[in-house]
Amino acid sequence: MIKVGIVGGTGYTGVELLRLLLSHSGVEVSVITSRAEAGVQVSTLYPSLRGHLDLAFSVPDVSVLATCDLVFFATPHGVAQNMMPALINRGVRVIDLSADFRIRDADVWANWYGQAHGCPELIGEAVYGLPEVNREAIKSAQLLACPGCYPTATQLGLIPLLENNLVDPGDLIANAASGASGAGRQANVNNLLSEISDSFKAYGSAGHRHLPEIEQGLRDVQPEGADVAQLTFMPHLLPMIRGIHATLYANLQGGGKELSDAALQDLYETRYAQEPFVDVLPWGSHPATRSVRGSNVCRIALCRPQGRDKIVVLSVIDNLTKGASGQAVQNMNIMFGFDESEGLRHVALMP
Amino acid sequence: MIKVGIVGGTGYTGVELLRLLLSHSGVEVSVITSRAEAGVQVSTLYPSLRGHLDLAFSVPDVSVLATCDLVFFATPHGVAQNMMPALINRGVRVIDLSADFRIRDADVWANWYGQAHGCPELIGEAVYGLPEVNREAIKSAQLLACPGCYPTATQLGLIPLLENNLVDPGDLIANAASGASGAGRQANVNNLLSEISDSFKAYGSAGHRHLPEIEQGLRDVQPEGADVAQLTFMPHLLPMIRGIHATLYANLQGGGKELSDAALQDLYETRYAQEPFVDVLPWGSHPATRSVRGSNVCRIALCRPQGRDKIVVLSVIDNLTKGASGQAVQNMNIMFGFDESEGLRHVALMP
Amino acid sequence: MIKVGIVGGTGYTGVELLRLLLSHSGVEVSVITSRAEAGVQVSTLYPSLRGHLDLAFSVPDVSVLATCDLVFFATPHGVAQNMMPALINRGVRVIDLSADFRIRDADVWANWYGQAHGCPELIGEAVYGLPEVNREAIKSAQLLACPGCYPTATQLGLIPLLENNLVDPGDLIANAASGASGAGRQANVNNLLSEISDSFKAYGSAGHRHLPEIEQGLRDVQPEGADVAQLTFMPHLLPMIRGIHATLYANLQGGGKELSDAALQDLYETRYAQEPFVDVLPWGSHPATRSVRGSNVCRIALCRPQGRDKIVVLSVIDNLTKGASGQAVQNMNIMFGFDESEGLRHVALMP
Amino acid sequence: MIKVGIVGGTGYTGVELLRLLLSHSGVEVSVITSRAEAGVQVSTLYPSLRGHLDLAFSVPDVSVLATCDLVFFATPHGVAQNMMPALINRGVRVIDLSADFRIRDADVWANWYGQAHGCPELIGEAVYGLPEVNREAIKSAQLLACPGCYPTATQLGLIPLLENNLVDPGDLIANAASGASGAGRQANVNNLLSEISDSFKAYGSAGHRHLPEIEQGLRDVQPEGADVAQLTFMPHLLPMIRGIHATLYANLQGGGKELSDAALQDLYETRYAQEPFVDVLPWGSHPATRSVRGSNVCRIALCRPQGRDKIVVLSVIDNLTKGASGQAVQNMNIMFGFDESEGLRHVALMP
Repeated sequence: MIKVGIVGGTGYTGVELLRLLLSHSGVEVSVITSRAEAGVQVSTLYPSLRGHLDLAFSVPDVSVLATCDLVFFATPHGVAQNMMPALINRGVRVIDLSADFRIRDADVWANWYGQAHGCPELIGEAVYGLPEVNREAIKSAQLLACPGCYPTATQLGLIPLLENNLVDPGDLIANAASGASGAGRQANVNNLLSEISDSFKAYGSAGHRHLPEIEQGLRDVQPEGADVAQLTFMPHLLPMIRGIHATLYANLQGGGKELSDAALQDLYETRYAQEPFVDVLPWGSHPATRSVRGSNVCRIALCRPQGRDKIVVLSVIDNLTKGASGQAVQNMNIMFGFDESEGLRHVALMP
Repeated sequence: MIKVGIVGGTGYTGVELLRLLLSHSGVEVSVITSRAEAGVQVSTLYPSLRGHLDLAFSVPDVSVLATCDLVFFATPHGVAQNMMPALINRGVRVIDLSADFRIRDADVWANWYGQAHGCPELIGEAVYGLPEVNREAIKSAQLLACPGCYPTATQLGLIPLLENNLVDPGDLIANAASGASGAGRQANVNNLLSEISDSFKAYGSAGHRHLPEIEQGLRDVQPEGADVAQLTFMPHLLPMIRGIHATLYANLQGGGKELSDAALQDLYETRYAQEPFVDVLPWGSHPATRSVRGSNVCRIALCRPQGRDKIVVLSVIDNLTKGASGQAVQNMNIMFGFDESEGLRHVALMP
Repeated sequence: MIKVGIVGGTGYTGVELLRLLLSHSGVEVSVITSRAEAGVQVSTLYPSLRGHLDLAFSVPDVSVLATCDLVFFATPHGVAQNMMPALINRGVRVIDLSADFRIRDADVWANWYGQAHGCPELIGEAVYGLPEVNREAIKSAQLLACPGCYPTATQLGLIPLLENNLVDPGDLIANAASGASGAGRQANVNNLLSEISDSFKAYGSAGHRHLPEIEQGLRDVQPEGADVAQLTFMPHLLPMIRGIHATLYANLQGGGKELSDAALQDLYETRYAQEPFVDVLPWGSHPATRSVRGSNVCRIALCRPQGRDKIVVLSVIDNLTKGASGQAVQNMNIMFGFDESEGLRHVALMP
Repeated sequence: MIKVGIVGGTGYTGVELLRLLLSHSGVEVSVITSRAEAGVQVSTLYPSLRGHLDLAFSVPDVSVLATCDLVFFATPHGVAQNMMPALINRGVRVIDLSADFRIRDADVWANWYGQAHGCPELIGEAVYGLPEVNREAIKSAQLLACPGCYPTATQLGLIPLLENNLVDPGDLIANAASGASGAGRQANVNNLLSEISDSFKAYGSAGHRHLPEIEQGLRDVQPEGADVAQLTFMPHLLPMIRGIHATLYANLQGGGKELSDAALQDLYETRYAQEPFVDVLPWGSHPATRSVRGSNVCRIALCRPQGRDKIVVLSVIDNLTKGASGQAVQNMNIMFGFDESEGLRHVALMP
């Protein structure tokens, strides 16, 4: 039984983390912080937790957090980096769900997030927590940077092609769409039901903060000598709560053009055969976001429209689960030697 | 480990039953029937189950079903009553999620369902599966009739008042609203997204089939000599998938008028103190259907607007869980001596 | 051609007012104010107006507004009352869509709105703008108080019964539900799509500000000597944008009990026969809010479940149209001698 | 005043056509057919039309239809082609909203629609009704083929680039999403609210019937000698009722690469300067489908992510208006010499 703390538990990734941890046999949640809600029972803010959790929010206190085996940060960017040295120095292991330690180049981070990085010295310590790529490094990580939602769906969809240099890395497209919970639980006119229900639009076309994270991840898996991966990333906002759907386009190149549909399908099935949370659907399937609602699974399908040289990969996740808190728990399981699926065996809620 | 079968597994109560049973430690689903989908993997129809279940639909066959310890019927009304004698005679225990055995008077049943009852001789054997009222009888039931969704929300909301004769039983109102999944997975223009999304309306004002079931249940808990309970029941259709919300109105009478808010609150808290799946919120709360999405809990709150003699009870459930498949599993747990919460500990999916 | 100004044009009633006025043949919108958006083109904030309106928001200025024939207030409560004397004194006619002048008793207003009324001396001048009741007085009104959304749906549904004293006025219930646009365009966590989509709940059970307005209106139409009308009002929040649905319950009394369904139906049809914006559906119908989406119509239907003495009235409006801006335009038409339907002939958007 | 008839008025394009025609000053709807609903008042099926239309559905009868100046077909594919010769021979003008006469090659049509074309001899007479390309031909058309919804949004978004050969025509992508009303009003499990609400998925990746229509249209506008346009077309299903959103990707080539953002923007603004129903938003905007809900406008915006050579065009329409019935009315206006905007001046319903 490990003791875990959660910093910033009032947002959607916080309550999702609690939902999952409460079904985990090896974890006790001993502290959850929120300055704004200090003293309030967590289940008052989230009645879904009534009867499952008897814990109140508390003001963040490093000395208390340091008594935990593991601390999750479910905070907006900029928070974790300030508290990180104190926790790392005391030997606490940390899983950061925010963007603070995902990008290895502090200048790139500063450029995209519009502020200097508050803890550049620890960036090098951080392990990027995409288990399907970094499982070994995750096992011994002290500071784990949990991937973003779009980056998870996009990387899992493109990795098999890029690892084998089967597509032109210079012309990748991720046309992605997210449910509104991706924007978090902030008071913002733009996220009112009256503004975004019954409508659909793109956003962030001038540059979304997940772009450098995705390109970094894609480049990491490319073989030596491949042209550098470049992505056109267009996010869209869906009139619904949970779910990421990425429609990924790439141009088959070289030997890739010669591959049969079956060979391409086999490539993906083989790549993910041992992965507990990646499910490759039959060729030509259309995974729906609801098929992963509340589950930690990424479902992927391939097609090659009209048999031309464009391959299209469809990749869906629940942005709060595999795209955030579920992946955090998966990383925790790897770090602490639990069964990788513990606390993550929920069947998606369907319908 | 008991062996269970499911007759009619292609509908929403079927897939919900599977979601719950797959997380139950004491159950093996050994057969699931569907004439239309015979031979098809269940996970092909419901991709949410991929990786969780390796079973194909089969044509219903009494001799196969009879090898089960328990058979669930998740069929439209009229089906269970025809197969029931064969199963009952072979000693199989049965939980019927349909309406076939909920009403004790075969003529009333025939009148509301527009057909003669096909198995009136077994109606008397059936135990009405509302654990909060009938737990003892459920333990030994062979044929269990699982309550409807509206009846569950309405009865749990009104029972404490009626048991104590605190309100005028002749003037009860249930203004209730259901998500669209309550109408099942039938090809019907009236349930298209384009017809019912972004809209709200009443339906069934001429008489909904759940009315006689609810009135029967309310009358069962009234003390001797009380006037007979009569309910005005107005169902409405919500532009969403899951959830029942019942707003219940009653006029306090006699000693009921003298009760303080605290005393009324205490009445409910005491009545349900030992119930694992009824949660009484603080006085004046407004339970949201999302607080029970995917969970087996019924959340109830009370208020007394302007301090007048009208008491209003708000009662919410997930129509597919506590309103159908969750309650069925709860009944199974009672019937077979499992922990009553086994397979039902899911925290509601929120947001 | 009259010149109109709009104070507070950034909210939903503001943009709805513009949508309607732009299709009105006798009106020129000459000024629209917003402190926060001063200088910004209205069509930048609301791209739906691109190509229809070339006007920027300006800081409110009484001397400019005084050049208008008519000024609409589409502001939160508390704003209109402060600017009102200056406009009234200059002879400008005003339609106030806010709650400032709806309630005739300044103390009641102060009690429900939690602040002293800023302009009690003008309350007596205000005409309550429900055309179906007050058409004559509206014609000559200088200061018109436009009814709230719930009050419009509820009053239109109950008036025929109360005018004729056919029901017990002491036991009226309005179980009402509103789309999220009723809460306005405010940055508020409670109105995020992620909070209220795919869910349903009651709110305001401790007392909603529309209650005193409704009770005042109902009492106004009662005959001499009738018991005072008392309403249990329970509002609910729908996971959708537009629409009010009121399910109204009353107990037939005296001669009311003897009326046939046809006679009750005839009562409503006769009462509203000359009303351009009240549509009485056939007995037993279930009006859907989508049938009035974007239109100024109130659709009403009656039923009498199980033939008992409870009559149920279903009443639907679009909260932004007949419940706010459409009714304001209807009042304007009456005040200025336009055809009452001018600018309001839109067919509801369906599907 | 022209007399118009509508064949197949029970679907969504039928009711939308009525909504628009009822606000048109020069049209009288004299007949509307439906075999299934013959004898039923149109306003009984669509209560939104109550008070606006007093007409019943009738069995289709060529001799009656032949008395009309114009007949609209709002039928599934395969119907119009069978009735067409009789109407054309009698000199009636026809606007076909179905796919029957959109594709000039009868074999291509037969291949994609899975049946032989029933009237190949009239295909050559049909004018493709995209006013922004074919206005002159439309004026004198007797048989007009109204474009599909995806084809309208996609062509309007790509035409300026293709006309000027600024992008590689061999690598075009249309990542498009549609509201559920695009699937029509058919009883189909796949379009139930419980199946598609709160979810998102691609569909038709093996080949959507709009692909050949779009490619034909794109090729028509290409200059001599350009490589043939080829499109990867991926449609998706949105959990909402109305709206098409097309995210279009193309690779700038030749002189196209040298164009500044301002020059690209100017290209679009100039191309559509005289078009009443194409609105080019400022560079980098994100048009939302709600900005055109119920209106006939196509809103377009451009961006060039990271300044690379990929240009992205965002194009939104209401699938039932500019994508079907609104465009049909626009074509009617051109054919009969009405103001092109008559009956189409509705401001989008927002919120």
